[in-house]
Amino acid sequence: MPLLLRSADVQQALDMPGAIQAMEALCREEAAGQTMSADRIHIRLARGFLRILPGVLTATGVLGYKEFHGGSDGMRYAIHLFELESGAPLAVMDANYVTAIRTGAMAGVALKYLAPRAATEVAVIGSGAEAHTEMEAVMAVRPNIRVGRVFSPRPERREAFAQEMSALYSLQMRAVDRPEAAVDGAHIVLTATGTHGGQEALHGDWLQSGQHVNSIGSTAPDQREIHPSVWQAADRIVLDTHRLLHESGDALAASQVDAIDARKVCELNQVVGGSERGRTDARQITLYKSVGTGLQDVAAAYRIYRIALERNLGTEMPELTTPRLMSQRAPVATT
Amino acid sequence: MPLLLRSADVQQALDMPGAIQAMEALCREEAAGQTMSADRIHIRLARGFLRILPGVLTATGVLGYKEFHGGSDGMRYAIHLFELESGAPLAVMDANYVTAIRTGAMAGVALKYLAPRAATEVAVIGSGAEAHTEMEAVMAVRPNIRVGRVFSPRPERREAFAQEMSALYSLQMRAVDRPEAAVDGAHIVLTATGTHGGQEALHGDWLQSGQHVNSIGSTAPDQREIHPSVWQAADRIVLDTHRLLHESGDALAASQVDAIDARKVCELNQVVGGSERGRTDARQITLYKSVGTGLQDVAAAYRIYRIALERNLGTEMPELTTPRLMSQRAPVATT
Repeated sequence: MPLLLRSADVQQALDMPGAIQAMEALCREEAAGQTMSADRIHIRLARGFLRILPGVLTATGVLGYKEFHGGSDGMRYAIHLFELESGAPLAVMDANYVTAIRTGAMAGVALKYLAPRAATEVAVIGSGAEAHTEMEAVMAVRPNIRVGRVFSPRPERREAFAQEMSALYSLQMRAVDRPEAAVDGAHIVLTATGTHGGQEALHGDWLQSGQHVNSIGSTAPDQREIHPSVWQAADRIVLDTHRLLHESGDALAASQVDAIDARKVCELNQVVGGSERGRTDARQITLYKSVGTGLQDVAAAYRIYRIALERNLGTEMPELTTPRLMSQRAPVATT
Repeated sequence: MPLLLRSADVQQALDMPGAIQAMEALCREEAAGQTMSADRIHIRLARGFLRILPGVLTATGVLGYKEFHGGSDGMRYAIHLFELESGAPLAVMDANYVTAIRTGAMAGVALKYLAPRAATEVAVIGSGAEAHTEMEAVMAVRPNIRVGRVFSPRPERREAFAQEMSALYSLQMRAVDRPEAAVDGAHIVLTATGTHGGQEALHGDWLQSGQHVNSIGSTAPDQREIHPSVWQAADRIVLDTHRLLHESGDALAASQVDAIDARKVCELNQVVGGSERGRTDARQITLYKSVGTGLQDVAAAYRIYRIALERNLGTEMPELTTPRLMSQRAPVATT
């Protein structure tokens, strides 16, 4: 019987180190050609949007999708998982937390493979939910971080973020009043802003030799985060998926001014799998950009499902659908 | 609380005349620009495929999607409906029957607007589930049909279909051993075959002045039903959606040999809404082609949901997801 997992169940089941493991394993499955995906569905609504992202992991043996949409109540996120072989439902889960943690975890895999190993200073631009998970990811893979600077437009927000991070990770994070001041001297630059309306939170001129940038905040064509000059400043550009090039407003804006040199670009799974190189020199500037994929959702959700089974989390529910046998005599509806 | 509707509930709630009403109302909503949609997700699996079709009806105030996939158990179909304004879940239902009836019902709307009013003879090519619903649709909108001929490759299947239809609708249907013999003299030609591997069930040479053809069986790029010459023979070509031109194997094959004259082509909602003309002359050959849309699923499912509420069908279930409020202070995950 399929498992119904509410928000509290999901949060209990997966922490950041576990999520990073799941994302790294996904990268290997992708690199081995054992995944299938398709362009997401994206419909703009009066309030937010409806988005659906599919993913099939053929080695793991699971298929699924995430669906989320906005409304006056807020955003609702759900992931549906099915066994690939039989098609039977495995689980339905609240995917709000999954979305944040898998984005942070994939950013953590990027940091593991691309950021300077000896990094001690981090810059954060943004102070929302995804800035929190990015900090969690960086501390999981670069535990020597001792100093941080955060910029966010509202002083009380950046102060609160600095205090919270300083306490949480035993480091010295302070709030600064310009993004340039955060970036200056940092080994790692994290951006998680996702502004609508075309302002950029990071410019290429601010970047320094040896820095690694993680940018996760431009996931729709009308959402912006980094200036085209960031793409130009980067020596290597690593994407969570090539689909990003037509899904992210940052990529669309950079393409328009020819700021993306295709020779610099590869996918993170290729770096993890070894067919492409990440950082090859300590002086390089590296850029990781993500837009999020259904594969990430399905891989994270499947790990949650397995842990939920072990720990007896969630509620069993009866199956909704009656499978219809496929036969040549009675063709099934296919529309 | 959202409503869970199993296969038996769904079948009780919607009959063909009701489904045709729902599809005609949808056509008017589409023609008024009060719908939103997007390309479906389609991933080929080792057994069948995973397909997801979205739809938003802004006047009705509902959004939703249909998801279906194959596996060793068979095909599983589910539709998820949400209130557009709040985003709250309204219902989840088994969508196997919905898929068949909405396809037949939209074909019924096409027949109502395009087929000769005085039609008495019908040809059917195919004898599966969708041939049954197409017959149901034709009898709902052209009740003067008295004579039918059916072709299907297996003699026992076409004989059984002929007997079943003759009894069900008090008409004289006989099985014939060549598709041409079914088509010859018919006012309406229904095809519902969906063969894989490139054979066509209908050729343009067989068609006669004044005939209307409904073809609903080629909904994937590798699925074929009608020969390119059918597109050439038709004076008017009416589609359930323009997306068909890149989703249906029939349309792709016809495009390759330049058999589709774009001036003949419009969408059914334009004919229903009055901005395009359907049949303008009794001697014309008209062709309706459908591939199925998420809008059709959502419109049919919403009608089922309303009827289920009235008649107390289905089971209430607690909501799975916890909505996450959108605010500028704490941006939500958008990936």
